[in-house]
Amino acid sequence: MIQTLLFVALGGALGSALRYLVNITLPRLVGHGFPYATMTVNVLGSFAMGVLVVVLAMKGGTRFAPFLMTGILGGFTTFSAFSLDAAKLVETGEIGTAAVYVLGSVGLGLAALFAGMAFARGFFA
Amino acid sequence: MIQTLLFVALGGALGSALRYLVNITLPRLVGHGFPYATMTVNVLGSFAMGVLVVVLAMKGGTRFAPFLMTGILGGFTTFSAFSLDAAKLVETGEIGTAAVYVLGSVGLGLAALFAGMAFARGFFA
Repeated sequence: MIQTLLFVALGGALGSALRYLVNITLPRLVGHGFPYATMTVNVLGSFAMGVLVVVLAMKGGTRFAPFLMTGILGGFTTFSAFSLDAAKLVETGEIGTAAVYVLGSVGLGLAALFAGMAFARGFFA
Repeated sequence: MIQTLLFVALGGALGSALRYLVNITLPRLVGHGFPYATMTVNVLGSFAMGVLVVVLAMKGGTRFAPFLMTGILGGFTTFSAFSLDAAKLVETGEIGTAAVYVLGSVGLGLAALFAGMAFARGFFA
């Protein structure tokens, strides 16, 4: 269990660092008006999760799940920043934007995960 | 920037390891039928985010935000496992449970964040 915990921690460090790099890079490219950065990591991470859950199961590689899924993707994606982004929009009265952000993140995240699974099944089948 | 990145990575490692411990402990206590573990870390992490965003701003401690918020809470909470949990429930036809899980996570997460902010404002004001 200690070894698995260390793999999760290492993956979490890498995923979180990568999320931070997206956080400081993306707003410079697309502006600060909408929380695109958190939405992007969450949707991309959900797609990658869909790919991995299929590939690791197909290839018998579920021993890599703690590092790749719980660690890297768990660290790369975030729910607390998602809640904070939505709360900030609600507090400034941007209710419509908050709704677009919340429904967009959840809807696109779920769609991306199913897309990732379909992609992996088509590509690796 | 490198130093901040290292603080984010260290926080992400700690937060992700803590999430893993909840993941392996909680289902033993409350059962495996519903993804309580991911919901719990996401709601708790949103509450802590609400507390921290107020406390760090009040106490002039925003330099700790990369380690505590982006790192620990970013690593502790997860959106990719949230999407995977929801997708699994949809795939097994448990649409009602999926809806409860998604709406519950988002609604309780947002409520917890506002509760955390109110708690911090009342306690530290």
